[in-house]
Amino acid sequence: MQRICFTLQVRPERMEEYKRRHSAVWPEMQQALRETGWHNYSLFLRPDGLLIGYLETEDFEHARSEMARRDVNQRWQREMLPFFVQTNGATPDRAMSPLEEVFHLDEQHQDVTLNPASGASL
Amino acid sequence: MQRICFTLQVRPERMEEYKRRHSAVWPEMQQALRETGWHNYSLFLRPDGLLIGYLETEDFEHARSEMARRDVNQRWQREMLPFFVQTNGATPDRAMSPLEEVFHLDEQHQDVTLNPASGASL
Repeated sequence: MQRICFTLQVRPERMEEYKRRHSAVWPEMQQALRETGWHNYSLFLRPDGLLIGYLETEDFEHARSEMARRDVNQRWQREMLPFFVQTNGATPDRAMSPLEEVFHLDEQHQDVTLNPASGASL
Repeated sequence: MQRICFTLQVRPERMEEYKRRHSAVWPEMQQALRETGWHNYSLFLRPDGLLIGYLETEDFEHARSEMARRDVNQRWQREMLPFFVQTNGATPDRAMSPLEEVFHLDEQHQDVTLNPASGASL
């Protein structure tokens, strides 16, 4: 499973409308995301317009290319395009560039206090 | 459950060392994070030094204040401080300001095609 984080830049003067639109993402768009493997997908917006996306998926390139083929996504991305600071003419979904994950907290408890040398004894 | 996203700014000239340090976060530090309710916690780094944190927790203010009381966190944050662009003298953990979540994909399948008026009939 991949954890994906990307950034985009929303035009500051369009932020309020961007938020309104994302409080009512078309149900068909949400369904297409689910069907193409976008899990636990959130968007966060910083007051200066920095948009941060986070999702979990089996294979981001596959999830992205499957979404790109959906009609509903093409319609959605065309409507979203003017909200973003220029992305070299690419629709926002094509401008998503995954960032490097430099840390992840492993959920599994690792006992480090009772037997600190256990790693060496295996 | 809260989904929390925050940003910090790593000094570009310290990025490589920052990454190295985060590939070997002290086990005691990781254990303290788990014990204080930091779940699914990741850090992502953009090439310009933008650092993005994502985590899930029951109550971020509680998770943050419980961590702040741990000795291991105080030692870790003091060591991390010089990696960051100036945060008004605050240690990085105190400079974490949660961003607004503007969208989350609900995992539950909502049937929008077969019975679009179901909401009104309830």
